[in-house]
Amino acid sequence: MNTRFLITISLLFFTLSTWANPPLSSWNERASRQAIIKFVAATTTPGSSDFVAPDKRIVVFDNDGTLWSEQPIYVQAVFVFDRIKQLAPQHPEWKTKEPFASVLKGDIKTALAGGEPALIKMVIATHANTTTQEFEKIVSKWIATARHPKTGRLYTEMVYQPMLELIEYFRANHFKVYIVSGGGIEFMRPWCQHIYGIPPEQIIGSSIKTKYEVRNGIPVIIRQSGINFINDKEGKPLAINLHIGLRPIAAIGNSDGDFQMLEWTTAGKGTRLGIYIHHDDAKREVAYDRKSSVGKLARGLDEASKRNWIVVSMKNDWKTIFPAIKRK
Amino acid sequence: MNTRFLITISLLFFTLSTWANPPLSSWNERASRQAIIKFVAATTTPGSSDFVAPDKRIVVFDNDGTLWSEQPIYVQAVFVFDRIKQLAPQHPEWKTKEPFASVLKGDIKTALAGGEPALIKMVIATHANTTTQEFEKIVSKWIATARHPKTGRLYTEMVYQPMLELIEYFRANHFKVYIVSGGGIEFMRPWCQHIYGIPPEQIIGSSIKTKYEVRNGIPVIIRQSGINFINDKEGKPLAINLHIGLRPIAAIGNSDGDFQMLEWTTAGKGTRLGIYIHHDDAKREVAYDRKSSVGKLARGLDEASKRNWIVVSMKNDWKTIFPAIKRK
Repeated sequence: MNTRFLITISLLFFTLSTWANPPLSSWNERASRQAIIKFVAATTTPGSSDFVAPDKRIVVFDNDGTLWSEQPIYVQAVFVFDRIKQLAPQHPEWKTKEPFASVLKGDIKTALAGGEPALIKMVIATHANTTTQEFEKIVSKWIATARHPKTGRLYTEMVYQPMLELIEYFRANHFKVYIVSGGGIEFMRPWCQHIYGIPPEQIIGSSIKTKYEVRNGIPVIIRQSGINFINDKEGKPLAINLHIGLRPIAAIGNSDGDFQMLEWTTAGKGTRLGIYIHHDDAKREVAYDRKSSVGKLARGLDEASKRNWIVVSMKNDWKTIFPAIKRK
Repeated sequence: MNTRFLITISLLFFTLSTWANPPLSSWNERASRQAIIKFVAATTTPGSSDFVAPDKRIVVFDNDGTLWSEQPIYVQAVFVFDRIKQLAPQHPEWKTKEPFASVLKGDIKTALAGGEPALIKMVIATHANTTTQEFEKIVSKWIATARHPKTGRLYTEMVYQPMLELIEYFRANHFKVYIVSGGGIEFMRPWCQHIYGIPPEQIIGSSIKTKYEVRNGIPVIIRQSGINFINDKEGKPLAINLHIGLRPIAAIGNSDGDFQMLEWTTAGKGTRLGIYIHHDDAKREVAYDRKSSVGKLARGLDEASKRNWIVVSMKNDWKTIFPAIKRK
């Protein structure tokens, strides 16, 4: 019994299990899939000039529009609207106060006409003044039953099957997988481990201010009425630097909000991977890019080629979009 | 060949290697050591009512005064003073401007008389206006040669041998080990992996504001002249919540700045471990607690017993303080 023997057995076991499940099986055998496999092979093969040690194999994924559907509107926005309706009895003033009044009338378009300030007002009103533990329960309860208006699927079933396989493929090759999303960090953490297998400490997102208090002898963290950090655009490399402290070697996004994350990642030395998921499948999902208010992708499309970023066509590169639903 | 066989072999191998190196060998066989071993056994033994799954085994360590010496002054403060001297030629105005003037005269006491505002002024002046990559190089270069004024050891040799063993013991039992320090996150990351085996993403600290820029086509992160977060006292549970998103099951500190971290950790359900390292060894290190301006420990001593926190006596619980120095 020695270490080499153990390693040999482990490798054999790993090889067998890998062989049993070919990777990226929902991806068509096209350039995108080939480039991903080539990148992973190059960075994980000992002796390769592009080899990266396992503790430096960081890959970052955007969430909305990259791992799950963001159309017709961000899932977290639906949570905001549902919570406004739920909290309305405690806020009689909302009946005449915008943007709340429009939400309560079901007029989301008018509610969102106030742009980001209106949205932030609604986020604060629905995400603050609870403890972190209470908020986790609120999110968990909501996400367990909330369904997509068009497909009728649970939102957690609106994840992309090829992306679940991509996460798994990276993980099997000893990459550390992070989510770096504009979504709320504490909105994502309650369900991301269950759905993606990504633990809370590998979820990075936007956040609101928090305060530590001892209430009746019990310490709590209170979510405050103020934004702490918006994890979008230039914010993403900053959050990656703060939370991870290493530059990723691969980044995957779908919108111009991910541009700087891809830019920062692929500007590092050595082989790097930048991927844009392009929503071009009107039949199986939604086709949108340059003119969309949600998940706008314009600069990314313009510059992907010269930056050697892969643009994945959902229509052509993916055999399926959503996973099969397992009902009991 | 099946999974059970592989697990059996792995366990056997693990057991053999554990047996070869008894844990916590620099700890005397007293109550502190026994309580730590009891806690780890309880939380890692399958079937135990206190069993905690590996992905929930989070342990947080303070750094200054807990993992390495903080006397006569925080190591990072020495870095600040050295950097003021180094940058002085570019700042002729410092000759007459406090607190810089006193530092340049070697009068640290007067420089620090201005309290936290003076310290923050010096931190900003010496830690900002570089890229993150430049700052990493500056810290790495400094820490490679800077020595403790009394012992002549490198600061990285002023770590506590029993704490290195404690980190290793937790790690061998599949705990995820974090540093949660008032020190600068980017001051610690360049050397913590090398010294403690703790990777950058498991280092949490104070931080200054950052900005993302593209300079001549190259993206950089610039360290700005403003504090982003002070990771001390109530800040520690907040940073743990933001970075980890899980409540630790064990916390180790040495000062009242760690009080809330221990409080938050040990208020969780199930078996928890809270440890204060008490600097009571005037002969082998420095004896200080209630009246010290650096690493003050008063409330912690008063309340440790009723909160079931362990107070480790460096004098009585540790066989050695510092590791043997290996010179080439």
